[in-house]
Amino acid sequence: MPQQNNTLPLKACQDIIEQEITTSLNLKKRKPENLYAPVEYILSIGGKRIRPALVLLACNLFSDSFEHAIKPALALEVFHNFTLLHDDIMDKADMRRGNQTVHKKWDENIAILSGDAMSILAYDLLSQTKAEYLPAILSVFNQTALEVCDGQQYDMDFEGKQDVGIADYLNMIRLKTSVLIAGSLKIGAILGGANNDNANYLYDFGLNLGLSFQLQDDYLDVFGDEEKFGKSIGGDIVANKKTYLLLKAFELANSNQKQQLHTLVNAKNFNRDEKIQAVKNIYSELKVADQAKAMMEEYYLHSLSSLEAVSVDPSRKEELRKFAAKLMSRDY
Amino acid sequence: MPQQNNTLPLKACQDIIEQEITTSLNLKKRKPENLYAPVEYILSIGGKRIRPALVLLACNLFSDSFEHAIKPALALEVFHNFTLLHDDIMDKADMRRGNQTVHKKWDENIAILSGDAMSILAYDLLSQTKAEYLPAILSVFNQTALEVCDGQQYDMDFEGKQDVGIADYLNMIRLKTSVLIAGSLKIGAILGGANNDNANYLYDFGLNLGLSFQLQDDYLDVFGDEEKFGKSIGGDIVANKKTYLLLKAFELANSNQKQQLHTLVNAKNFNRDEKIQAVKNIYSELKVADQAKAMMEEYYLHSLSSLEAVSVDPSRKEELRKFAAKLMSRDY
Repeated sequence: MPQQNNTLPLKACQDIIEQEITTSLNLKKRKPENLYAPVEYILSIGGKRIRPALVLLACNLFSDSFEHAIKPALALEVFHNFTLLHDDIMDKADMRRGNQTVHKKWDENIAILSGDAMSILAYDLLSQTKAEYLPAILSVFNQTALEVCDGQQYDMDFEGKQDVGIADYLNMIRLKTSVLIAGSLKIGAILGGANNDNANYLYDFGLNLGLSFQLQDDYLDVFGDEEKFGKSIGGDIVANKKTYLLLKAFELANSNQKQQLHTLVNAKNFNRDEKIQAVKNIYSELKVADQAKAMMEEYYLHSLSSLEAVSVDPSRKEELRKFAAKLMSRDY
Repeated sequence: MPQQNNTLPLKACQDIIEQEITTSLNLKKRKPENLYAPVEYILSIGGKRIRPALVLLACNLFSDSFEHAIKPALALEVFHNFTLLHDDIMDKADMRRGNQTVHKKWDENIAILSGDAMSILAYDLLSQTKAEYLPAILSVFNQTALEVCDGQQYDMDFEGKQDVGIADYLNMIRLKTSVLIAGSLKIGAILGGANNDNANYLYDFGLNLGLSFQLQDDYLDVFGDEEKFGKSIGGDIVANKKTYLLLKAFELANSNQKQQLHTLVNAKNFNRDEKIQAVKNIYSELKVADQAKAMMEEYYLHSLSSLEAVSVDPSRKEELRKFAAKLMSRDY
């Protein structure tokens, strides 16, 4: 195991992936065009390449050679974008990263099928590595990928469900968001030759960081700075999304506050700003923002101590520690 | 390589797969229920289990042990049913094998997501075999799976396209139908320890058999016996499906016949039986049925000679030869 600090910076990882997307997938030349142009499109309209970068960072934690991890890293990015593409159909979303969604720009059938092709392309990329690692990374990937589907289904189920608890919600965001961050790190660790313990510590690092990030997302949607957050504030409140804040508010509310919340949630006609303000007032009365922040902090500290437990020279972990801090400061 | 004839019969292969579907996937207990109940449903409403049976037959051609091929065989069945599930959404089909389609019985979002989960489950099953075979079977599977998507996209593209040629059509059915038959056989061969040549001969056997079968399907849709064929006759004509027969008719038609065909295809209001009869009359004038039968026969003979070329004791190939004959007689 190398001990000096000659690790890849996050930015270099992101650049490698950006490069690889254009060179290795050959999407502009693939036929039929209606199948592959949407794949090229969704991969080209941005994204921070977080998951593949984590594969490379995790691999590089244990090994100076990381070239064999590039294709599997890209697999994680392609898979992630596949889930976004299909989620956008299910959510009837018109826009993604400031651009039209695939089912809007083309049509729903093309969006379904090009998503299916992306899922296969992801496996094709994953398979392009040293055979010795294949069974282990496939096993992590398969479990993770299925869990992401589980999370999306729970999220859809929750929309029509009255009695969603905080534990249900945390389980849902764990599946829908965190396991893919965690799985990326574990796959990278395996490709770097990490032992089981280290691979699992990295998984825990990612899982807890992902949970902290998602809770922060809920928080910022209500209390964030519109410009820094990158989306308009209050969207979750307007859409009655069962976020941590709303569920916690229902849990803590007295009967009067509960009544107010029910009225706000069930109102068919309302002024957007008034609804947001009224719900925010109840959140303030119940101090749910503080609770959310405390929970975010708890998951964040848990993630750092999992990273701490990985037995490599601390200097090699610097980049992942910096990544975690950047992620939570929304500056990545 | 074993030389005596102690090969599995087709029926035994089908039974093994039927058994495996209920025991190894554990679908009735998986949560969330809205994700896995549709998977259980589509796998339980029938199907001949042709593709997984071919994996086992091909494996057993080269090796007496085939247990390690059962999970990959099931992967082919799960993948095939995943494509049917998503195709049914795209085709807005209400019924499949005499039962409601998944998007009708549940809804479209659930159908999209449970299909996605099936694709992952297929890879999970495929991965459950001896590590030594994993790179080779993944490579065949990935290519095949992408080609099936290509075929479905071409099929959708053809609906709105005026100038589809016979070559385009044959390429489309090769991708949409035949490669999965061919890929199943090749994967089975690899798992049986076949050399490259033998694996490729089996692939060709499946590819040509699949083409012959699909052409026969086009033929029977017009000239078949409703009861034996299992679907109502003339459906392709009513829907203006660009089958071999219609494309060949346009190719051979004189200007008068071409005009008649255009009128029939473009008619907004028509009597179903009259339209079918009028198109059949033109088919008879142009003898396109004979042409279709000649082409079916050509592909069928090609498939048999590819099987012939596989270098194992002829007695071991008996079951695959019988399978091909049964398939073409629609008695399987």
